[in-house]
Amino acid sequence: MDAEQKQTLFNQAKEWTIEAGERIKKRVQQPFEVNTKRDRKDLVTEVDEDTEKFFAERIRRSYPEHQVLGEEGFGDEVTSLDGIVWIIDPIDGTMNFVHQKRNFAISVAIYEDGEGIIGLIYNVMTGDLYSAKNGEGAYKNNYLLPKLNQTRKLEDSLIGVNQFWAVPNRRLDESGVHQLIRKVRGTRSYGSAALEFAFVSEGIMDAYLTMRLSPWDIAAGVIIVNEVGGLATRVDGNPLDMLHENTVITCNPSIHKEIIENYIHLKE
Amino acid sequence: MDAEQKQTLFNQAKEWTIEAGERIKKRVQQPFEVNTKRDRKDLVTEVDEDTEKFFAERIRRSYPEHQVLGEEGFGDEVTSLDGIVWIIDPIDGTMNFVHQKRNFAISVAIYEDGEGIIGLIYNVMTGDLYSAKNGEGAYKNNYLLPKLNQTRKLEDSLIGVNQFWAVPNRRLDESGVHQLIRKVRGTRSYGSAALEFAFVSEGIMDAYLTMRLSPWDIAAGVIIVNEVGGLATRVDGNPLDMLHENTVITCNPSIHKEIIENYIHLKE
Repeated sequence: MDAEQKQTLFNQAKEWTIEAGERIKKRVQQPFEVNTKRDRKDLVTEVDEDTEKFFAERIRRSYPEHQVLGEEGFGDEVTSLDGIVWIIDPIDGTMNFVHQKRNFAISVAIYEDGEGIIGLIYNVMTGDLYSAKNGEGAYKNNYLLPKLNQTRKLEDSLIGVNQFWAVPNRRLDESGVHQLIRKVRGTRSYGSAALEFAFVSEGIMDAYLTMRLSPWDIAAGVIIVNEVGGLATRVDGNPLDMLHENTVITCNPSIHKEIIENYIHLKE
Repeated sequence: MDAEQKQTLFNQAKEWTIEAGERIKKRVQQPFEVNTKRDRKDLVTEVDEDTEKFFAERIRRSYPEHQVLGEEGFGDEVTSLDGIVWIIDPIDGTMNFVHQKRNFAISVAIYEDGEGIIGLIYNVMTGDLYSAKNGEGAYKNNYLLPKLNQTRKLEDSLIGVNQFWAVPNRRLDESGVHQLIRKVRGTRSYGSAALEFAFVSEGIMDAYLTMRLSPWDIAAGVIIVNEVGGLATRVDGNPLDMLHENTVITCNPSIHKEIIENYIHLKE
């Protein structure tokens, strides 16, 4: 699409995202129903579902030719990234939404023929909106995020990795993760992949890695992090696939090779 | 001291804390010198030092009979908690201060003959002030924090524990920590003990535990968490000692015994 169409679509996506955030803010203080999905730790609420419906309905009405890929299943059965595809996580960080009533985000991405063109991550409770159009830089609200410092050393890095990956598990050798935790300056875990991508984009974390994420967790983050010169790949260095689950590392490019070559040993 | 003296002291401590926060906010965006202390991961900046001097000077001028125990050594050589002792961490979460320019706190506590009577934790960049006077409840800004829900189950809990304690280490058996990480609903790590105490007090985390903290990291947090019915002890269940380093667990009382008995196996 041309620049004007892209700007129009960006404005529309942003408007809906802010509006969806307002609706969530009204509901976060009221009782809501919490259920589980794949396992007892995988939470979903009626607010997740209603927020995804909010987007799906508006996109279908305004752009019937677009596809919608959403976490809660109110989008389409997307099997191809041809054309325009919206990839939406209505509440990324549902456990935080439930327990903390903060530290969660709406993640909205728009892909055109497989290429990420618009990404929005909205930290609903702080009101911070991270956004990017590909090739045009990334913003936190109205502030253009600077390119990442390309001289970061791993031993001076702060990285995001959930505690779970330091526990024996079936996906990767935890001893490599232990070495990584010892090597870096510090580790954090915030419980929202979208926000952790945003934090890497801002340069307040130098990496975030995890072993299983769905496209909606990362679709917007990838676009934003790329715009500040960050990398986002599978943990074996291969490209991410926006139709399937992925292992994920996003980071300052200066530490990407060292982490994936020296510290990540997949079992599968 | 009587209620009026306590209120006056609280008001003074709060006024200095807010003023110190304003000074830190001015400096956080400017270059500052970063050094290391005990090891390469233990950071200190000139802003930490100047902030502690700010408090020490004012306390000495206004209350020459009080003692000051501070992280950066500008207080007194405190060997007894007799009388009034201020226990101060000028910037708790210095790594966050340096890397993130947010997610750090000023922690100020006042103890009288060993009893915590006033606690303040100031999240400088958000402006949120957590405070308590013993026996009078805990507040987040002007909001009285409710008592913690006493029916929390461990499997439904969100707990704060740094990734480091899941790595083989000399203080505790990491396999117990692994079991704990598997058992709970989720884990987080924010990099500021004071804020993690504040989050437990707010009920947005159900526990926070770590194997080595100094009195200034926890002195205010203990007072605040006690006021909402939370517990704060060493990880063997013994009382905390405000003159020495401690292992620390602070949590919802409904999960305290289960965590320390079933998951924490100290090596020393």
